[in-house]
Amino acid sequence: MPGAIAEQEKTHRQSTEVLNHMGGQIVDYLNTIGQKAKAAAHELALLSAGERDRALLAMANALESTTEEILTANAKDLRAARESDMSPAMQDRLTLTDARIAGIAAALRECAALPDPLGRTLEGITRSNGLVIAKVSVPLGVVGIIFESRPNVAVDCAGLCIKSGNACILRGGKEAIHSNTALVAAMRASLASEGLDPNFIQLIEDTSRETATAMMKLNKYIDVLIPRGGAGLISAVVENATVPVIETGIGICHAYVDDTADLEVAASIVHNGKTSRPSVCNALECLLVHQSVAATFLPIIRERLSSHDVQLRGCEKTCGILGAGAVPATPEDYETEFLDYILAVRVVKDIGAAVEHIRVHSSGHSEVIVTQSLESANRFTREVDSAAVYVNASTRYTDGGEFGLGAEIGISTQKLHARGPMGLRELVSYKYVITGSGQVR
Amino acid sequence: MPGAIAEQEKTHRQSTEVLNHMGGQIVDYLNTIGQKAKAAAHELALLSAGERDRALLAMANALESTTEEILTANAKDLRAARESDMSPAMQDRLTLTDARIAGIAAALRECAALPDPLGRTLEGITRSNGLVIAKVSVPLGVVGIIFESRPNVAVDCAGLCIKSGNACILRGGKEAIHSNTALVAAMRASLASEGLDPNFIQLIEDTSRETATAMMKLNKYIDVLIPRGGAGLISAVVENATVPVIETGIGICHAYVDDTADLEVAASIVHNGKTSRPSVCNALECLLVHQSVAATFLPIIRERLSSHDVQLRGCEKTCGILGAGAVPATPEDYETEFLDYILAVRVVKDIGAAVEHIRVHSSGHSEVIVTQSLESANRFTREVDSAAVYVNASTRYTDGGEFGLGAEIGISTQKLHARGPMGLRELVSYKYVITGSGQVR
Repeated sequence: MPGAIAEQEKTHRQSTEVLNHMGGQIVDYLNTIGQKAKAAAHELALLSAGERDRALLAMANALESTTEEILTANAKDLRAARESDMSPAMQDRLTLTDARIAGIAAALRECAALPDPLGRTLEGITRSNGLVIAKVSVPLGVVGIIFESRPNVAVDCAGLCIKSGNACILRGGKEAIHSNTALVAAMRASLASEGLDPNFIQLIEDTSRETATAMMKLNKYIDVLIPRGGAGLISAVVENATVPVIETGIGICHAYVDDTADLEVAASIVHNGKTSRPSVCNALECLLVHQSVAATFLPIIRERLSSHDVQLRGCEKTCGILGAGAVPATPEDYETEFLDYILAVRVVKDIGAAVEHIRVHSSGHSEVIVTQSLESANRFTREVDSAAVYVNASTRYTDGGEFGLGAEIGISTQKLHARGPMGLRELVSYKYVITGSGQVR
Repeated sequence: MPGAIAEQEKTHRQSTEVLNHMGGQIVDYLNTIGQKAKAAAHELALLSAGERDRALLAMANALESTTEEILTANAKDLRAARESDMSPAMQDRLTLTDARIAGIAAALRECAALPDPLGRTLEGITRSNGLVIAKVSVPLGVVGIIFESRPNVAVDCAGLCIKSGNACILRGGKEAIHSNTALVAAMRASLASEGLDPNFIQLIEDTSRETATAMMKLNKYIDVLIPRGGAGLISAVVENATVPVIETGIGICHAYVDDTADLEVAASIVHNGKTSRPSVCNALECLLVHQSVAATFLPIIRERLSSHDVQLRGCEKTCGILGAGAVPATPEDYETEFLDYILAVRVVKDIGAAVEHIRVHSSGHSEVIVTQSLESANRFTREVDSAAVYVNASTRYTDGGEFGLGAEIGISTQKLHARGPMGLRELVSYKYVITGSGQVR
């Protein structure tokens, strides 16, 4: 027996050594990337707006001139996707074409044309002791982005980061690794040919879960981590990261139809919210209807949503009114981001019950009240604590472009730093610059 | 042997059960506190500015009217402190007196008099489609504060949180548990007597490390965690927390004396930065001197700092110039927040070397250049990436009051959300309120 135990211990020791060795390798690999990113961020922060814009234009040109190589790399990813039986919708997200690459390049040029978010004096004050205090926008430093299969995310995020003076470390999914590698290689080459540090943009080519987890703890080198993807990715990042994280994108969005609502407006807003693009985070997932208009409104919306075969999952009252037009909802249905032609429905007693339902079940993304009552509108916007709270307009407007912020890197559903659409101005920090003439305290 | 192994396994299983049980108890305890805080935050967010201010005034009155009980509780902490040989400086920090309690109450009244940070329209725009989009300040929700021995922190933080509409969960050190309990009890009683939820303020009375660590992972209930204390506390929080953290307070602050500096101004700024209050985070820890003025300036500052017996720890050149007036610095001396009458000194080749030294060694708090050259001033403020960058003024001004922000909850040395002094306006988030007339996309 002692021999067996010793043997066991040896095996254990060996596997621990292998693990530590692997762990050590991952840490070394990421530290090298981190050091390069910090140095690049230092250089990037000192570039003028014109220099940063020229970098974006060079990147756009490079993507177009290497379209063939990018499509070849993308074909490898698509072949693997078909072999692994990826769903057609996911395969479509992964697919690049000439037109899509041209679109990605065009987005970089649009980003270059946006106003510079850096060097803005956000506030200024002269104190009575003569100190002049200015609060000036500066880059965050190094932004880490963990994203899933859509390869355009690599380019969009790199563009927004460089425009805002931030170096970026990208970590995309395994499914898109060849596409991401080709896109990043093209952008890095264009930076180098402009005499700039290619490490403004780095891709983590090791797509293992261990590397992603280690990246989430790279506090020394990464200033903020932005996960872009589904609920599983976001929660994995929130649970594991010690680097500051901005949570994005989970949208369990609600529409509440008040007793005073114009029901035609309500039907139009619910129809638009549910059917115009159900796979996005600002799509509607739950409809709350005041009990006094439920018997009138539910058949109207049932009819409108039949255009897209939307399944309604309703509470008891809803099913009572709609009969075969709805199926009974489970408690989970009120906690689910369907991203599909499915809508949870609940009849509520009054606006207070609607606000309470939202408080308990919402992900804090976007909610709308449809009402003609000023009192209800004011109460809803005051009491509902979500990133975007609407009165009589579709939740589908929660978007950087629609808000006039320009391109967005994500939609934050947390309260720290940035909330709602995050554009260039949300990718910066600030510093205080204080000018005196020898003042001491 | 099999019996021994089984026995071992049983013991292991039992101890695991005990641990899980303890862990489960801690989690239940914190979840209960978290649920109460969330409910309180919801009520608090809907109070008017006048109601919140009245709460602060009631808290101030309650502290004064229960001074006797508070001092009795404080005496228990002080007795334990003496028995455990706490340093006199630490005992002083822990000590409450009539005058100190009156001062703490006065700070609450001053906080009540500050402008309301909530409900401000930060920006507004009307889009061409008629949507009116307003960005409005709202509370963060629940703020967790982990702090060390000074009991006034409990009251100061509770006041700032309530003023900004946030419920708070306080976790103070074991050394001050009786004082903190008495202070929080007085404040909670005053809230209840105003008809408000006492859970606006909660104290975690279990001061075990396990409970603190579990608190750092209470993402479901705590929106932001602010550690207030020394470097050990801050790094423990950053390493363990999954709740968003705002790092505060580590200040390795630098003064750089340029070749064009007015040396009288330089001596005054360095003397003030080092000696006016060495225990605070905005005190100077490192002096960098341009080589061309080192031989003149170092003897001047050596003489000025002798008033407080400041020890200079210098590089080779410094020691060459000052002889017995300095001791050789170790590499660690350039990475240390001394919080004492000690100053690291280094002669540098030029402003570029000074900026580089700061980039590598600074904690990102406050730095100053003393110069008469506009070019040097501009270069320093542009290239040095710290929360506060000074030209010709003491770093000791980095303070919410001195910056015109009112009372502060801490000084952030990170870039996300808030940087530099964090006052009431840094304790809020925002939401977008969008008003339409039926717009759909």
